[in-house]
Amino acid sequence: MKSPKSIDPAVLELLPKASLDGVETVWDRYEAQQPQCGFGSLGVCCRHCVQGPCRIDPFSNGPSKGICGASVETIVARNLLRQVAGGAAAHVDHAYEAVEALELAAKDVLNYSLDEIKLQQISQGLGIDVSGKDKRELALEIVKAAYADLANHGNRPIQWLMAHAPKERIDVWQNLGIIPRNPDREIREAMHQTTMGMDADPVNLVLATAKQGLVDGYSGLKLATDIQDILLGTPTPVVTEANLGVLKKDFVNLIIHGHVPLLSEKIVYWAKKLQAEAVAAGAEGIQIAGICCAGNEVLMRSGIPLATNFLAQELAIVTGAVDAMVVDVQCIMPSLAQVASCYHTQIITTMPIVKIPGATHIPFTLENGDQAAQEIVRKAIRAYGRRDSKKIKIPDYKRKIMAGFSVEAIIGALKRIDPEQPLKPLVDNIVNGNILGVVGTVGCNNVKVTQDQMHVELVKELVKNNVLVVATGCSAHALAKAGLMNSEGTEDFAGDGLKAVLTALGQAAGLAAPLPPVLHMGSCVDNSRIGDLVTAIAAYLNVDSALLPVAASAPELQHEKALSIGTWAVTLGLTTHLGVVPPVLGSKMVTELLTKGLSDVIGGKFYVETDPLKAADGLLEDIRAKRKKLGLPS
Amino acid sequence: MKSPKSIDPAVLELLPKASLDGVETVWDRYEAQQPQCGFGSLGVCCRHCVQGPCRIDPFSNGPSKGICGASVETIVARNLLRQVAGGAAAHVDHAYEAVEALELAAKDVLNYSLDEIKLQQISQGLGIDVSGKDKRELALEIVKAAYADLANHGNRPIQWLMAHAPKERIDVWQNLGIIPRNPDREIREAMHQTTMGMDADPVNLVLATAKQGLVDGYSGLKLATDIQDILLGTPTPVVTEANLGVLKKDFVNLIIHGHVPLLSEKIVYWAKKLQAEAVAAGAEGIQIAGICCAGNEVLMRSGIPLATNFLAQELAIVTGAVDAMVVDVQCIMPSLAQVASCYHTQIITTMPIVKIPGATHIPFTLENGDQAAQEIVRKAIRAYGRRDSKKIKIPDYKRKIMAGFSVEAIIGALKRIDPEQPLKPLVDNIVNGNILGVVGTVGCNNVKVTQDQMHVELVKELVKNNVLVVATGCSAHALAKAGLMNSEGTEDFAGDGLKAVLTALGQAAGLAAPLPPVLHMGSCVDNSRIGDLVTAIAAYLNVDSALLPVAASAPELQHEKALSIGTWAVTLGLTTHLGVVPPVLGSKMVTELLTKGLSDVIGGKFYVETDPLKAADGLLEDIRAKRKKLGLPS
Repeated sequence: MKSPKSIDPAVLELLPKASLDGVETVWDRYEAQQPQCGFGSLGVCCRHCVQGPCRIDPFSNGPSKGICGASVETIVARNLLRQVAGGAAAHVDHAYEAVEALELAAKDVLNYSLDEIKLQQISQGLGIDVSGKDKRELALEIVKAAYADLANHGNRPIQWLMAHAPKERIDVWQNLGIIPRNPDREIREAMHQTTMGMDADPVNLVLATAKQGLVDGYSGLKLATDIQDILLGTPTPVVTEANLGVLKKDFVNLIIHGHVPLLSEKIVYWAKKLQAEAVAAGAEGIQIAGICCAGNEVLMRSGIPLATNFLAQELAIVTGAVDAMVVDVQCIMPSLAQVASCYHTQIITTMPIVKIPGATHIPFTLENGDQAAQEIVRKAIRAYGRRDSKKIKIPDYKRKIMAGFSVEAIIGALKRIDPEQPLKPLVDNIVNGNILGVVGTVGCNNVKVTQDQMHVELVKELVKNNVLVVATGCSAHALAKAGLMNSEGTEDFAGDGLKAVLTALGQAAGLAAPLPPVLHMGSCVDNSRIGDLVTAIAAYLNVDSALLPVAASAPELQHEKALSIGTWAVTLGLTTHLGVVPPVLGSKMVTELLTKGLSDVIGGKFYVETDPLKAADGLLEDIRAKRKKLGLPS
Repeated sequence: MKSPKSIDPAVLELLPKASLDGVETVWDRYEAQQPQCGFGSLGVCCRHCVQGPCRIDPFSNGPSKGICGASVETIVARNLLRQVAGGAAAHVDHAYEAVEALELAAKDVLNYSLDEIKLQQISQGLGIDVSGKDKRELALEIVKAAYADLANHGNRPIQWLMAHAPKERIDVWQNLGIIPRNPDREIREAMHQTTMGMDADPVNLVLATAKQGLVDGYSGLKLATDIQDILLGTPTPVVTEANLGVLKKDFVNLIIHGHVPLLSEKIVYWAKKLQAEAVAAGAEGIQIAGICCAGNEVLMRSGIPLATNFLAQELAIVTGAVDAMVVDVQCIMPSLAQVASCYHTQIITTMPIVKIPGATHIPFTLENGDQAAQEIVRKAIRAYGRRDSKKIKIPDYKRKIMAGFSVEAIIGALKRIDPEQPLKPLVDNIVNGNILGVVGTVGCNNVKVTQDQMHVELVKELVKNNVLVVATGCSAHALAKAGLMNSEGTEDFAGDGLKAVLTALGQAAGLAAPLPPVLHMGSCVDNSRIGDLVTAIAAYLNVDSALLPVAASAPELQHEKALSIGTWAVTLGLTTHLGVVPPVLGSKMVTELLTKGLSDVIGGKFYVETDPLKAADGLLEDIRAKRKKLGLPS
């Protein structure tokens, strides 16, 4: 039996409409691509020089080496390193755009109020003397520190890492020689290392890959989140809804899609301001909703509802009710312009490095954010008038969600139980077994597997077994849509121990209901929040994070970013589950290094399992083994 | 008829020996890879995300889009951008290692005498006030300027570009928005731009590729050459020999292979110092010879003979007479360790990002250069004693060559004719048609074509038609081995006009013989010397370099670096011939942008022709058309 395309009822309702409307979707293109190239799938194809392409015969009936002499191990490891460097580059680029914004804000060129607590916290972490400095002065010092990592020409480690990583981990990384010195230099070096006639040693290449994970973790994820929190505020709990049912028939529907919140928050601001213009155009108002991580960002800080996640981005347009979709960077299907051409929807690109033929380009710069946002909102309002009511179908599916769980928000909730040692109630409950462990589920959808199924089935099994789940990215979207981010989710799905803890926390927070079984910690860069939580628990217990009953999972990974995030999780010592097989199976040695060998030297490892229940069992087993080592009841 | 593997007689003599010795060579592996994947060859395969691999059916009987919706244009352009970024990254990494060495030299940590004239010249170009500063102070200012490009967070263009590029070109690039700001940032951005869900606009991607060409040209090639000249001296003419016949039966033969001269020059120094140890070990002395660009570097500055170029690196070992081959970065076949295991040869890797299973690793750092070089030379001496005389066969082929033609050396020769305006005799002879034009031939060997054939046949045809050829890299090796780098070459191959000029120059230089018809300008990074020459001629004539009767050719390109160097040549406005088809033909639009469209906006274009004589005709036609536009006789 063919597996269904999605478990999301909104998607299942819209797919036939897409077909009727003559819209080609990602599932159609996936089918057209079958069978996918076996060489590429195994990672044994190399196209790094013009003597190639080369490919190794996995059945040993054909070539066993590339033309240059590269072994299958070299080819697989080199491909992986270049992919992970791509993921790290994406996040470092994201982070430094935020740093530039903070620089302009510190110099009063941009108008941001700046989060005082976060400024203090980051300054202290970096060892900046805060005394007598106002917010803007502190911000400028932080900007200087971030820039100093890029300007570092010696062997000094990345400051952002040294200031924030678990101390025990730093020793491990230092011994392996994988501490990055300068994010850009490491990315440059990884590209160099993977060109023809460079590294042929798979172990060296896998260690270089681990280094890229650290580049992503600290100069990508952590830096981006820190700076965005300073600029836009640290999230606090919000309540809203998720899934395409949040679109409103009589409102101007404007979808924010991409990853960077700088423009998105401007749009949220101007959509409120320009409500009257929408009303003048015949609408009842403006409804903003988010896709992918731009959606998660405005959810976390402004309570904007989630429209849907990666795989359904085209179907949002198929509702016929989206007047404009504005995109910034990453995970933007190039097909959007084509899909939109069947409807009245405006696709608006905004970034110099993301253009799509057929889309409207409204350049966003840090300086022109307000004008660009107004122009975008007005474009949506004008498009509203061009709707074809016969084409509108908004699926009536949405779920209540609670989100906004920054580490500060979690600590805030815990402080109501123990103001002195807020982590104590959490750790005590881990120790006594009410909470068996913590799993962070992250990453994408991948058309190779039924949309959201791996996320949801895995997590249901985990929470049933009293694992507290924290989620980000499209994983968070999936779990939100499945009702795992509200109090009812705890009642319905959580094991007794976990339910008791979440109920107590909910009561302490004055909710008269449990906290949700899955805490939404934000966007993909906000995986740093999960890292911060793990780091804080490790510090509180004074143990290596590799020993904690904590694991990670990217159940439906698709993007190079997911590979680099996952690699970072492994460097933290976490067993990191992947629910889709990355292109490494062509090399037994590389596969074993990633899934076993790394574990010996770094504590963490990748764990590949494509069945959600088996994956849950594997993670539970891993958590129980770690509990046992710590002498905790399992 | 199958085309021969090489036109190099030494190679043809050694191939049967390799076969007898049971050595697998690059030609064997090439054969084993046949047929190569058509999708990869056309550039229509994408593996940038884990939903893939995707591939577009070039015959329109299969999928026309990637799973994400990427068009064939997007896929081809994205692949090219990532490849060119790989090439640029390799050269920027190379350049900044030299900058680090200069920093240590300026701080007296390393002992280099520093080239006074080059220091002055670069300082003035950068606008550094030179008054009252000694060499070390100037060096430190230059280092600061180089580092400032990496630390540049705003939109200021790369200084190294602004200081050295033709002024008319800067305007063109500025109008296209492709002036790079910071080499590392641009490489990071290119990686980001090519991840899933980013740029889908082939025009935008091709322009980004052009930007990477500028990154390579100025923060890679030019920076590397400038700094290396300061550290190691600016080349002046040297006379030696080329081809495997330079190996000596009774000497310790030590081959230097790779690209960075910092370690190589140390080895040259210590090989002289430790001659007595070689003699004590029973040898007559130590013979150093070079492969690839490390070879070109020590040729240019120390007159070390050339052993051979890229495609014959394995065969050097098959002579049985190579006691050690030391490698640094780039173009090192991973097969070398395997080949060496059939002989007594020691393969020594030296760089942290280039390790080869089976090779000996002796870490080279800037600080331990002398120790590492001694250890390497001594390893070669010890290996000499383990030779198997039955396995030794040194082909008796070598050609006399004159090399060392830095721009300064060329100007020096011209000054003997016109001390006031040294470029005048050269330009006058271009104007009067004695010299029809100038072509720079650069780049690699590629196993897809008969080794050296395209280089040699193309160049013979060009010089016959009075084109002055300047060469670098493995192209220079090929032409050296073919006798095109000595006075006899001018007698034998140059057209009358060119012969007259080269004879006059040779006489003025006191040689009593003509200069060679091909001037060896150095290594691949020394393509910057060709750029400097073009820039100087354009400035002298006060015309845009795009108008000059100058062209470039990479007849047998294989490396990503060749793609990035070629892209830079195109940005300079040059028609840039490629003798091997790069993986872009899958997109008609991208192919047309590269071979026609770019020409409209940037002046230069790629010109793909796989037949050497037709390619020569095409380049001659291009040169004649440019002459006509300038009103010169053609």
